[in-house]
Amino acid sequence: MSFKLKDIAKEANVSISAVSLVLNDKPCRISEEKKALIKKIAEDNNYTPNINARSLITKETKTFGLIIPDIENIFFSRLTKAIENYCRQFGYTLIIVNSNDEYTQDLNLIDLLLSRGIDGLFITISNSAYNHQEDICSKLNKLTIPYVMIDRIFPDFDCNKVYFDNVKGAYLATKNLINHGHRRISCIINSINSQNSISRFEGYKKAMEEHGLSIESDFIIEGDYHIKSGYAAGDMIIKNNTTAVFVSNDMMALGLLKRLREENIRVPEDLSIVSYDNLLNDFLIDMQITSIDQKVSELGTVACDVMLNHIQNKELECKNICLDPELIIKNSIKDIVYKEQP
Amino acid sequence: MSFKLKDIAKEANVSISAVSLVLNDKPCRISEEKKALIKKIAEDNNYTPNINARSLITKETKTFGLIIPDIENIFFSRLTKAIENYCRQFGYTLIIVNSNDEYTQDLNLIDLLLSRGIDGLFITISNSAYNHQEDICSKLNKLTIPYVMIDRIFPDFDCNKVYFDNVKGAYLATKNLINHGHRRISCIINSINSQNSISRFEGYKKAMEEHGLSIESDFIIEGDYHIKSGYAAGDMIIKNNTTAVFVSNDMMALGLLKRLREENIRVPEDLSIVSYDNLLNDFLIDMQITSIDQKVSELGTVACDVMLNHIQNKELECKNICLDPELIIKNSIKDIVYKEQP
Repeated sequence: MSFKLKDIAKEANVSISAVSLVLNDKPCRISEEKKALIKKIAEDNNYTPNINARSLITKETKTFGLIIPDIENIFFSRLTKAIENYCRQFGYTLIIVNSNDEYTQDLNLIDLLLSRGIDGLFITISNSAYNHQEDICSKLNKLTIPYVMIDRIFPDFDCNKVYFDNVKGAYLATKNLINHGHRRISCIINSINSQNSISRFEGYKKAMEEHGLSIESDFIIEGDYHIKSGYAAGDMIIKNNTTAVFVSNDMMALGLLKRLREENIRVPEDLSIVSYDNLLNDFLIDMQITSIDQKVSELGTVACDVMLNHIQNKELECKNICLDPELIIKNSIKDIVYKEQP
Repeated sequence: MSFKLKDIAKEANVSISAVSLVLNDKPCRISEEKKALIKKIAEDNNYTPNINARSLITKETKTFGLIIPDIENIFFSRLTKAIENYCRQFGYTLIIVNSNDEYTQDLNLIDLLLSRGIDGLFITISNSAYNHQEDICSKLNKLTIPYVMIDRIFPDFDCNKVYFDNVKGAYLATKNLINHGHRRISCIINSINSQNSISRFEGYKKAMEEHGLSIESDFIIEGDYHIKSGYAAGDMIIKNNTTAVFVSNDMMALGLLKRLREENIRVPEDLSIVSYDNLLNDFLIDMQITSIDQKVSELGTVACDVMLNHIQNKELECKNICLDPELIIKNSIKDIVYKEQP
């Protein structure tokens, strides 16, 4: 038989709701001595709160929901872990659901999480949600709990959002190649119509245009963020006579490296590479790739802070937080010198 | 205004519970014509079931819970994805929670999932649960919903369990090295006291003993399944004068490869390696490692089948399913010949 709220109340000679308020650190008119006594009784008797009983009184579930597009993708599994670890420190449990990158699932899973009781929702929308913005926004607008959009956002939609500046990341990556003397620079881009891939292409174009470099049609190669598409892109890179390539994610960079190795094309001696995500270097044995780091743990903890602020301080103004990605320099870029035309 | 069960009932001139039974394919005394009519009305009006309304009638939530030790670990994130995809085909949503490999979280999260309503529970226990078997078993014994232990199990505890034969996997790996002529074979083992790591060490020992090969004390090197510990183990491997090593997971094998590359020790020319999990080869660029494959998707789908069988057929006998791991041969092992002692 476990020790219950009412047992503590009886022993401390206070009401059950007083015990609940004290153990949940809510403001109440109870003396510090009495508070200490209540906490001591709870501790001595190894009291663990019953979630249902607590939520009846506090209306809180101490649970957050997280909708994620693909739990198998290292970026998202690390993000999930970061959110989970941070929430745990504040006494919140995280319930995770996977949308399989389908916007219909985004809609269903919001309902599912609401029906199970959560205090707040984190959501990284599916890529297909960009073609159904109205449906998603209308669903989110009706929520009566706080929510935070993470990583994938709608720029014009007013809500809590925490994400990285993808234009800036791609700009930094491409500019770094230009600074090393490169002029003919390919770009392997995700063809799926998402805000983040559009922004990364924008950053590449911006850097090229700023330096008066032309983007020939065969410089732009489409992929799908997976290893195989980077491998396939390798064939185009081998043909298009560029000296450097900006790859818009690490998995495609890995595929490209596999294809180049087959043809004995060396990095950086024969081709310079800069990539995106900085998740690959852990797995590479004899080289490291210059890459744009999106600090996953920062993304997760800032999103949690926004959520907790909203809940604890009843803050109602929406936060729009754009985080800066960082260029991590490794040895995958060679300096080259072009001869000036006479 | 969405189309509801009662609207279908009115249009088909039957009771609401009749509609519910038909749409959930439950046995009922309704003519096939009427059944077809009910389904047509639902389809024509784009009816989507309300989970709460349905669970009031059927007592089902159409949701399973999954407790996983570390969502960032590729093996578990792939397992999660496999279970999620398979459940989805049968109309079930998966709610995932991460225990951070702490048995106290296993206990808490079982309560949390129960309080939120699930029809069944999948659980991969934390490693620390092996030191608290009684607590976990007592909690599981009290469950009134079906549950399946996955991958990490208690051998003596009677319940649904689906897992791989770890003794056999390690035996196959080690025997393969022996078949290539190796006699001095190191073993990098996980020092954490879990059933799976004990079994893998057992398999290594069994193969060595069967062939009359001695295990010298410096052959056995402890790690923790992470890259760094494999890297550190490299120093011991370099010193102990063995020609081959059985590494009990891929992340430690990756760390070992990094250390060997620093010393220009070539695989397989200077050292033969066989590893465990077969998750690393996707990431390797210029080599591939012979490894024991535990088919994650098979583990996930078999566990789902056990669960669905339990639920749909009200089967009460516990299933104990031990899956066979498979040796995937790549070019990380060299044949060697020892000169016979006179």
